[in-house]
Amino acid sequence: MTLTKAIKLAGLGVALATLTAADTPALSPQEIVDAAPASAWKDIPPEDMVVIRFKDGTSSVLQLAPEFAPVHVANIKTLVKTGWLNSAALIRVQDNYVTQWGYPDAEEAPLPAGVIKTPPAEYEHTPSKNFKPLKYKDSFAAKVGHVASWPVATDGQSQWLTHCYGMIGVARDVAPDTGSGSQLYTVIGQAPRALDRNVTLVGRVIAGMENLSARPRGTEDLGFYKTPPEGGRFTSVTLASDLPEAERPKFQVMDTDSATFADWVKARANRSGTFFVKSAGAIDICNATAPIRKVP
Amino acid sequence: MTLTKAIKLAGLGVALATLTAADTPALSPQEIVDAAPASAWKDIPPEDMVVIRFKDGTSSVLQLAPEFAPVHVANIKTLVKTGWLNSAALIRVQDNYVTQWGYPDAEEAPLPAGVIKTPPAEYEHTPSKNFKPLKYKDSFAAKVGHVASWPVATDGQSQWLTHCYGMIGVARDVAPDTGSGSQLYTVIGQAPRALDRNVTLVGRVIAGMENLSARPRGTEDLGFYKTPPEGGRFTSVTLASDLPEAERPKFQVMDTDSATFADWVKARANRSGTFFVKSAGAIDICNATAPIRKVP
Repeated sequence: MTLTKAIKLAGLGVALATLTAADTPALSPQEIVDAAPASAWKDIPPEDMVVIRFKDGTSSVLQLAPEFAPVHVANIKTLVKTGWLNSAALIRVQDNYVTQWGYPDAEEAPLPAGVIKTPPAEYEHTPSKNFKPLKYKDSFAAKVGHVASWPVATDGQSQWLTHCYGMIGVARDVAPDTGSGSQLYTVIGQAPRALDRNVTLVGRVIAGMENLSARPRGTEDLGFYKTPPEGGRFTSVTLASDLPEAERPKFQVMDTDSATFADWVKARANRSGTFFVKSAGAIDICNATAPIRKVP
Repeated sequence: MTLTKAIKLAGLGVALATLTAADTPALSPQEIVDAAPASAWKDIPPEDMVVIRFKDGTSSVLQLAPEFAPVHVANIKTLVKTGWLNSAALIRVQDNYVTQWGYPDAEEAPLPAGVIKTPPAEYEHTPSKNFKPLKYKDSFAAKVGHVASWPVATDGQSQWLTHCYGMIGVARDVAPDTGSGSQLYTVIGQAPRALDRNVTLVGRVIAGMENLSARPRGTEDLGFYKTPPEGGRFTSVTLASDLPEAERPKFQVMDTDSATFADWVKARANRSGTFFVKSAGAIDICNATAPIRKVP
């Protein structure tokens, strides 16, 4: 994560960080991830992973969060399993805000049977007893931390997922509409936390984020595309569990209840080594989202 | 900023927000910007604006902050005026972190006369008496707010610019090197505030941010390009003040000491209207960066 001037020097920086005897720094966040024991990782269930393949040959993998938005996630799984989403495309990219996908034309195909058109608002939840708070301040909430490897905020009465980079939400019209899940967006800039508790968050992007964040920005109001670029049209949207075993993506998320995750957060909040002059001694929830890795 | 499902509905949403008599909401942040009096805007000096033209025909405009980093900014202006930067290119794009530019080859051309190779660290400053604090918590600092339309944080003893989306910093090797300004980066993701007080921030991107943030991500360590894409090579880097009057970009930034800016921050922190169900009642510094506009 250094801003070193050339890749060779970046390598050198790392070497120094591990070898300098005089001032041996603590392990870096990346070194902690690299050294994490298998027990610190949790497999992401294939039935919660959605693989989007784009017309330009790239792909992205999403992880759904049924424990936080059961009705919306059930809708999304139905939209995936019925092939309804295969005709979707990236329709909006607003810089420092969101990339949004759905039917490229004003008129969507009729929603398949089993999709609830107006689900309940799944914005807030009863606080989980498994909430692991960060010990640092948050600009928006009384407390922030993690529940089952997801970033959450709480005011004591309720708990909600936070709009961090890569989190996925359900686009909707004005309240009380909550969105069916036929249009989703992901955050591609500074966390728009003002949306917390106003939109249903249903998951996060776990791979191919660059295939959503680095798309051309839309030129219409709110970053909508006048005409969605061909490359951003979907060719298939599939649950990993419906792919042949050999084609299934296999990912793990760090267990936010593990000692390794606590060490990683501490290292991220207290940067040391040869690059950092001054440690922040703090971190915000969206710089402390759980590491994800391919199953080795 | 709504996540409305289609642009037609987005338009409708805005219409409702202004016309609904029953529940007439306060002005939206955008409506406050649109209605801002001329006195709420400050011209950005042409001698502080840098125009980067890329080989693919796109361009970006940067605003330098000589009041915060005089030595580094003087270096950068010399690198621009001597044409040294005309041979630079985008060399690194790391998703949710930074886009960095400099010489695409390991060896830079010799720095021109007048460029200080190792400037003093311009990381922190004596607190300004013109500091306008936000009344909300910050995860990283005792207080955050604005000084002369720039986002800053303070611990009471010193004050520093914050690493918000679009802010520009000076890439450097390991301390005590501070970087000459020959390589710069801009933030393209969640604010990496851990870098605050560890790097010299020298300005911000005020136009063409998408020509820096939407570039292909680099495939090497830290997001460096193996071979910088041709389109991201610079064709010219010029101070606006050195362009013919007719070609000069003309931009204004909202005066963060103005009543309009206070209203805008309040509206951003307390979203209302037909889309928002629950107002955060708070905002973080990187969601409260001063609006910028082309001179009308």
